[in-house]
Amino acid sequence: MTPQSVRFDTPLPLRSGAQLRDYTLVFETYGTLNADRSNAVLVCHALNASHHVAGLHADATGQPIPRSEGWWDNLIGPGKPLDTDKFFVIGINNPGSCFGSTGPMHINPDTGRIYGASFPVVTVEDWVDAQARVLDVLGIDQLAAVLGGSLGGMQALSWTLQYPQRMRHCVAVATAPNLSAQNIAFNEVARRAIITDPDFHGGHFYAHGVVPRRGLRVARMIGHITYLSDDVMDEKFGREMVGREAGEAPRYSTQDIEFQIESYLRYQGDKFSDYFDANTYLLITRALDYFDPARTFGGQLTEAMAQAVAKFLVVSFTTDWRFSPARSHEIVKALLDNGRDVAYAEIDAPHGHDAFLLDDPRYHNVMRAYFERIATEFAQPARNAPVAPLADAPVAATEATP
Amino acid sequence: MTPQSVRFDTPLPLRSGAQLRDYTLVFETYGTLNADRSNAVLVCHALNASHHVAGLHADATGQPIPRSEGWWDNLIGPGKPLDTDKFFVIGINNPGSCFGSTGPMHINPDTGRIYGASFPVVTVEDWVDAQARVLDVLGIDQLAAVLGGSLGGMQALSWTLQYPQRMRHCVAVATAPNLSAQNIAFNEVARRAIITDPDFHGGHFYAHGVVPRRGLRVARMIGHITYLSDDVMDEKFGREMVGREAGEAPRYSTQDIEFQIESYLRYQGDKFSDYFDANTYLLITRALDYFDPARTFGGQLTEAMAQAVAKFLVVSFTTDWRFSPARSHEIVKALLDNGRDVAYAEIDAPHGHDAFLLDDPRYHNVMRAYFERIATEFAQPARNAPVAPLADAPVAATEATP
Repeated sequence: MTPQSVRFDTPLPLRSGAQLRDYTLVFETYGTLNADRSNAVLVCHALNASHHVAGLHADATGQPIPRSEGWWDNLIGPGKPLDTDKFFVIGINNPGSCFGSTGPMHINPDTGRIYGASFPVVTVEDWVDAQARVLDVLGIDQLAAVLGGSLGGMQALSWTLQYPQRMRHCVAVATAPNLSAQNIAFNEVARRAIITDPDFHGGHFYAHGVVPRRGLRVARMIGHITYLSDDVMDEKFGREMVGREAGEAPRYSTQDIEFQIESYLRYQGDKFSDYFDANTYLLITRALDYFDPARTFGGQLTEAMAQAVAKFLVVSFTTDWRFSPARSHEIVKALLDNGRDVAYAEIDAPHGHDAFLLDDPRYHNVMRAYFERIATEFAQPARNAPVAPLADAPVAATEATP
Repeated sequence: MTPQSVRFDTPLPLRSGAQLRDYTLVFETYGTLNADRSNAVLVCHALNASHHVAGLHADATGQPIPRSEGWWDNLIGPGKPLDTDKFFVIGINNPGSCFGSTGPMHINPDTGRIYGASFPVVTVEDWVDAQARVLDVLGIDQLAAVLGGSLGGMQALSWTLQYPQRMRHCVAVATAPNLSAQNIAFNEVARRAIITDPDFHGGHFYAHGVVPRRGLRVARMIGHITYLSDDVMDEKFGREMVGREAGEAPRYSTQDIEFQIESYLRYQGDKFSDYFDANTYLLITRALDYFDPARTFGGQLTEAMAQAVAKFLVVSFTTDWRFSPARSHEIVKALLDNGRDVAYAEIDAPHGHDAFLLDDPRYHNVMRAYFERIATEFAQPARNAPVAPLADAPVAATEATP
């Protein structure tokens, strides 16, 4: 689980017409690739996540750093629902991100200056193309499965359309075939908060030595509200006030924190603004907005999904109002219309969209059962077998600097 | 419907412990007060509305200005569901607002400087007290009804608890007995956007000749999302792009408008930032946050509502996710627990929270029927009778400057 990186000097053509040339992608792998290279699972990340999907990052002395636990560590690992004793799991940081792969904070080789706002717009389809190139390097022709939640689920869906022969299963969790107007609206408010922050400087804030923290904070606060259900917010925070007993009068202030929920949101916003890149936020929310495989099929998702040949597991959560079960129903219907093999689970979970990252036994049992089914289709890897050699990689693959 | 104003030199004690001294309230009346002063209906306004509830403002030449139509003009007027041929309707601008009554843009008599952020925090209960003083001036001991939607509905509810003997009916539309954590969260994000706008200057931006427009825009955009249902947004805007045919590729831009919903939200934000005061936004969202009549009753709404003796009409809308029908059910249950006379209508309307301001026949029929019932309880006013004299008012009442 030490991050690796691979540099590509063949340009990556993008849907916008632009291209990324001379770019680096950072990835991590977990478990062991079996002899016939048939047990690989690609895990696609969502908005603010990365290639670090499981385990603990090791620091320079080899000690695990507990605080950098993989974002899907409760699901992925030895003996876990996606069992790395059986599967070879790959996490790839998408281009445009701010966690190691080439992104807006890096130098544009064409200008010698930081990309900033001039980093090309990347789409879900572009990310899938980039991920496929990493698989080429790893020598993996066909994935046992592509797994993703939320925006990661969109990538998993897109894989089935872009590379139908390179995967056997698609596991799409808490996702949607496109964003609703309301989803786009929330993204747009977040973007306006960032773009109108005077410290954004049109996206070239790096040169000014500032970060549009105000905008990032507001963006993250909005995001958090849409990740949680109304009910779970009431349960976790309710109307509880900070430093006040139940029934006590408030402080009567318009600018200071009164309610626990305010304190929570401000904390989340502050934390996020410390590490997330503003241009990446714009890029990733736009990738969300643009994803719409049915667009070139007259809006007919059934026609779009006809290209898929994978088997599917689709999972949704009852209280997810960001990507509601109804959006998953659209996916399932389009697949059934095409006679595809699709399993669907609607988990009665209280946590809203966040549920896909949480350790809910009903949810994890569904995932475990599905991956166990996949595991029966290939030979188990030998224990302690060497990691797939990268010797035949077309370009250099080196350990990423942390 | 020409705005009037009344100045009070008796201080208004506020729940915060502060007081408002030497303040002015602007109001409008519609229809004719009957001989025994029993046909008056107070209409309470919500976040960004005012005393101008119905009709058209006349300009200096007496010509109606079509663009300043009252915010509830589809409901209130001659022959309308709240029929001003029968009722004497009063709209009062609450203190702290930015539409004429004393607010943060006015001079603090204690300092001789603009209040700004030092305007005292006002609560729903304070507003009700202020409104009661206007009724004293108008010589109205008992209202036929208090009507309000959303935050206005909270004022209507509070009236039944603060002045139970001064009203016979409460009509509470699209409201809630308090804000949920999610409601507070949205308010907090809007406030953070305003407060962290560098042009806010801690609330004293007037002295700097600037307005925190960025923050106001973001606040309004967030508000608009919560006023509309997901479904109506999809119907009105969907994924339609500006200047693009269906199926056409986007422009691939992170900062320019792509989708119609973005254009709509930016327009609403811009318009709002032209006329709304940032300190008022903070004050009014805080009044929303703080409203919680059950707070001093151990959270037991039933115990809180025991003080009410009015008859109630409670109305909610199926797609309102800001103040959902479940919140109205809480109110109805608390009233029924106390054996109160309560009618409840849940209108199957697609428009979300906004529905309470729209002309839906099912909704308006319910309102019409209820006000007709109220009208049977008092003598009809004589046509063309003079408006209630203000001669016995304790302080001067003059026409407001527009």
